[in-house]
Amino acid sequence: MLTKSSSLMRLVGELKKLPGVGERTALRLAFHLLKNPRNMTQLAETLCDVRDRVHPCSVCFALTEEDPCRLCSGGRDAASICVVENSQDLMALERSNAWQGVYHVLEGALSPLNGIGPADLRVEELVARVQNQAVREVVVATNFTVEGEATALYLTKILKPLGVKISRLAHGIPLGSDIEFIDAATVQWALQGRNEL
Amino acid sequence: MLTKSSSLMRLVGELKKLPGVGERTALRLAFHLLKNPRNMTQLAETLCDVRDRVHPCSVCFALTEEDPCRLCSGGRDAASICVVENSQDLMALERSNAWQGVYHVLEGALSPLNGIGPADLRVEELVARVQNQAVREVVVATNFTVEGEATALYLTKILKPLGVKISRLAHGIPLGSDIEFIDAATVQWALQGRNEL
Repeated sequence: MLTKSSSLMRLVGELKKLPGVGERTALRLAFHLLKNPRNMTQLAETLCDVRDRVHPCSVCFALTEEDPCRLCSGGRDAASICVVENSQDLMALERSNAWQGVYHVLEGALSPLNGIGPADLRVEELVARVQNQAVREVVVATNFTVEGEATALYLTKILKPLGVKISRLAHGIPLGSDIEFIDAATVQWALQGRNEL
Repeated sequence: MLTKSSSLMRLVGELKKLPGVGERTALRLAFHLLKNPRNMTQLAETLCDVRDRVHPCSVCFALTEEDPCRLCSGGRDAASICVVENSQDLMALERSNAWQGVYHVLEGALSPLNGIGPADLRVEELVARVQNQAVREVVVATNFTVEGEATALYLTKILKPLGVKISRLAHGIPLGSDIEFIDAATVQWALQGRNEL
């Protein structure tokens, strides 16, 4: 019988800190791991590897193991910068295979209510990149949330005076979706942004 | 940008081995951990602790850090053995606070289709316990699945000749449930096992 102070119960406690993992799921995961000690070792080792190796790129702040990251050093169009909130968003954009430029990770979005202002984001570094490099275009790919929109507005305000072209990802109906179930605001955007065939 | 061979992607691969965790969840968990390096360290350390410390009790085969486990050495009624498939089931029974005896973990259930026979379970050790100790009753608390029922039948067949009382957990309507939605077989069991008030 395992006591509350046992290592397994501490593992359950650690697993419960993960998003979407409650007591029951944590127990299930812990017992699953216990049945596969090799997986447990590999998971522990990989966790330490990630902690020790992964860090933000010094140029674009995307998470990377190299410095500068592959995107910054890999012959991409450095005159076009796509601004994203975090590395997950960057990966989603990369999966689309539609962007040949570089990126800039803000490490968050403006959120005055949560005390997150421009100084907490990588805004200064973005301005420096735009000023010091021959940047042609900045695509603001922050999320379409209140915080993301506020960040996009703020970036437009401070980057416009630097004479750079600023754009935003298109709003519209997502692929494969039924117009019937799309919210009114998105339909409005899709109508306004309609393309001639 | 993180490459497929990066430690983060290896972490995603390790997390995907967990039950109910797919690519997207694994990515979400990995990025969550990345934001909390201390949690990552603690999780890695606890994983190693569990791997090194937790083992089956030499008497009842419940997972434990001591040997014999607290239940076997803790003044419980050793003449009553509750037989369960695994340590998770044991913990569920312990949570009920309704069992004062000891346990015996089979480490599985009979499943001829999956090649699991009596020799793959801790059946021999159970028989030895019943023979060598003054065991009065064996409560078979294997699951109410095909495998669990088969195991219960098999255990009855081999333990009966030893002159020990054998019982099985009661079937019936679970607490707080609506009889309307209970399956016919369970209702049948509940009627047959009805108690006089």
